[in-house]
Amino acid sequence: MLRAGPSQEEIRRHNLGTLLRHVHLGGPTSRAELTSRMGLNRSTIMALTADLTAAGLVREELPKETGRAGRPSLVVRPESSRVYVLAFDVGVDRLVAARVGLGGVILDRRWAVRPRGAFDLNESVATLAGFARQMHRKTRADTVCVGAAAAFCGAVRKTDGVVRFSPNLEMEDGPFGEELSKRLAMGLPVTVGNDANLGALAEHTRGTGTGCRDLVYLHGDVGIGGGIVVNGQLLGGAAGYGGEVGHMVVNPGGRACGCGSHGCLEAEVGERALLEHAGSSGIQRLAAGRGRDGIHAVVEAADRGDIIAQDALHRVGDWLGIGVANLVNVFNPEVVIFGGTLREIYLGSAAQVRSRLNLATHPALRETLRLRTSELGDDATLVGAAELAFTKVLADPLEVLARMSV
Amino acid sequence: MLRAGPSQEEIRRHNLGTLLRHVHLGGPTSRAELTSRMGLNRSTIMALTADLTAAGLVREELPKETGRAGRPSLVVRPESSRVYVLAFDVGVDRLVAARVGLGGVILDRRWAVRPRGAFDLNESVATLAGFARQMHRKTRADTVCVGAAAAFCGAVRKTDGVVRFSPNLEMEDGPFGEELSKRLAMGLPVTVGNDANLGALAEHTRGTGTGCRDLVYLHGDVGIGGGIVVNGQLLGGAAGYGGEVGHMVVNPGGRACGCGSHGCLEAEVGERALLEHAGSSGIQRLAAGRGRDGIHAVVEAADRGDIIAQDALHRVGDWLGIGVANLVNVFNPEVVIFGGTLREIYLGSAAQVRSRLNLATHPALRETLRLRTSELGDDATLVGAAELAFTKVLADPLEVLARMSV
Repeated sequence: MLRAGPSQEEIRRHNLGTLLRHVHLGGPTSRAELTSRMGLNRSTIMALTADLTAAGLVREELPKETGRAGRPSLVVRPESSRVYVLAFDVGVDRLVAARVGLGGVILDRRWAVRPRGAFDLNESVATLAGFARQMHRKTRADTVCVGAAAAFCGAVRKTDGVVRFSPNLEMEDGPFGEELSKRLAMGLPVTVGNDANLGALAEHTRGTGTGCRDLVYLHGDVGIGGGIVVNGQLLGGAAGYGGEVGHMVVNPGGRACGCGSHGCLEAEVGERALLEHAGSSGIQRLAAGRGRDGIHAVVEAADRGDIIAQDALHRVGDWLGIGVANLVNVFNPEVVIFGGTLREIYLGSAAQVRSRLNLATHPALRETLRLRTSELGDDATLVGAAELAFTKVLADPLEVLARMSV
Repeated sequence: MLRAGPSQEEIRRHNLGTLLRHVHLGGPTSRAELTSRMGLNRSTIMALTADLTAAGLVREELPKETGRAGRPSLVVRPESSRVYVLAFDVGVDRLVAARVGLGGVILDRRWAVRPRGAFDLNESVATLAGFARQMHRKTRADTVCVGAAAAFCGAVRKTDGVVRFSPNLEMEDGPFGEELSKRLAMGLPVTVGNDANLGALAEHTRGTGTGCRDLVYLHGDVGIGGGIVVNGQLLGGAAGYGGEVGHMVVNPGGRACGCGSHGCLEAEVGERALLEHAGSSGIQRLAAGRGRDGIHAVVEAADRGDIIAQDALHRVGDWLGIGVANLVNVFNPEVVIFGGTLREIYLGSAAQVRSRLNLATHPALRETLRLRTSELGDDATLVGAAELAFTKVLADPLEVLARMSV
């Protein structure tokens, strides 16, 4: 529970990780700035930077310009092109693999359309591992992969990364991370997280929620997922299934949900509800039919003045507003972020969402509340997977590199 | 963000607090046990214990009995009768003040019935301060009060303890803590927390939820409050209003709620709903009418076979079950704890609650979930207030005592 003070070695490791996190999240930073932000003296910062440089994780260079007189402070820059992670994203309609460099730069990516219906674990893993190999072939010899992680649109057990259930992929108990790790054959474990949880993590570290301690991220794909940050930490729950806001009942006895229940937020706000409400206007036939294109077609038609499309968006917006109000009452967040297909749906129904929110929450809960769309857009879940993959190297930079080079 | 390693003095202070917390929560503990639990060596434990003994916070004594041969390890015991906090609890129907000794023993208490209707800040504060004086007069000269805190059935701003809103006390923006502190005239600030939040804290530290990292506590008074522990920490939200689960909408367009909305969990499950559903059976007229007695009368009548009372409980249980299912989907807790009047209501409607829960949550979320009643019962909120009041002395035992003796 408690130990005596940490050893010098533990302090050094912690400081190395913290410095690396600063440049990973904040980009190139001068030594002077790091000295002030980390509250350490200049010689300590110099020693830490030297260690990270020797390990090939950062490099130091002269700043491009400095307005000040005197010797300029060297800038510490993450080795984005040399040190990277593999990030994967499994949604209902697509499979994505990317190489993401230290500092969060997406260096390369590959994606494939996934046909609707049951998830084929074997085939999907083969596709993603193939993408990883293609990308790896194009890297220089001195690059090093320090981690791998995947965002998956299902509930993921935190102890072993097994996907316990994913109604929209008609899947239960799939050892996705383990299989992908085997197929990659790089000796790397693949950490797996729920896609909306990782979207929340991404928005919290690099997007709309940067600097917020309490945020709610709502992710629209075919269904509705959620990721919640409480007091600066991603909410996982006892087993890792926390944040299943899509199955919060907002309309008892309402529309049937893929999960077997009725009136879930996902059943009332998800893709199927919107497209069915809009169906009779012919939008559905005109557009690609479903998925992002189908939703986009409804929002566009509403923008053009199509009354049925507008009505469909408003109906969905009413339920979305109730869901948001419930989450605001429970979490008192600083910001609610709409991501995935919910960006468009929210923008097309913001009046309904705000109206429901105003009816069902006390003004005190709205004083500092902002409703915002995702800054990272379609990349939120992928960027979150990359952040998950970077966790280890940021916690102990030298240990991870030493292990990699064995 | 990060500092070099903590100083010797910081480590000592931290260790003193940790040792004191061990005996405060765990009761009398042998030095040998503390040595093993805290991972420190025997001489350090001896020095820490000596400091706390000198400060009058603990005492050491021979254990009553020991099965082992050799010199028995001394037992460290909190000075419960000498060191205490003042704890207050403001519910809709009662005002409570208590003296709670280190270790969590309720040493003395006073309470008054509060008439329904608008909260009279001046009068309530006078009553509670009067109780505190009465109790203080009965203490020995060497006792010391190390803190004061109150549980209040309203949303409390964390920065200054102002009660922002409390529909059931018809109150907005009441500086309750500040006024009570003035009236006590002991030079002590009174920290204020939402009653259900503090009930959750109490159940987490000393009750049904001891050892759980993730729990949901639901508190029934006239309304329904909630307190949630996420990853071992009480959820507060951006301003402190988190956990307002009573105003989660479970039945859009349903019963009117005191908050101005419709179909809130509180409107469907609270006292008024139950008593109105049961009203036509005459139970309400037979019983004390409302409050705990009214609810108790309905539950008793249902137990005796009264069909209308049973039906009233079942209707309320259905909505309670939807609310619980929503919270389980969002938080994936280890345990949901029913406290206050919800203990009886839950026990009388457990079949409905479980049935709704089973319909609206995936089995994976129920694998390790337990539904339980509060172990601390009517004292949960008061005990939580006491724990809040003990926070400072546990964080820095010697500093608090030094300040007290000035």
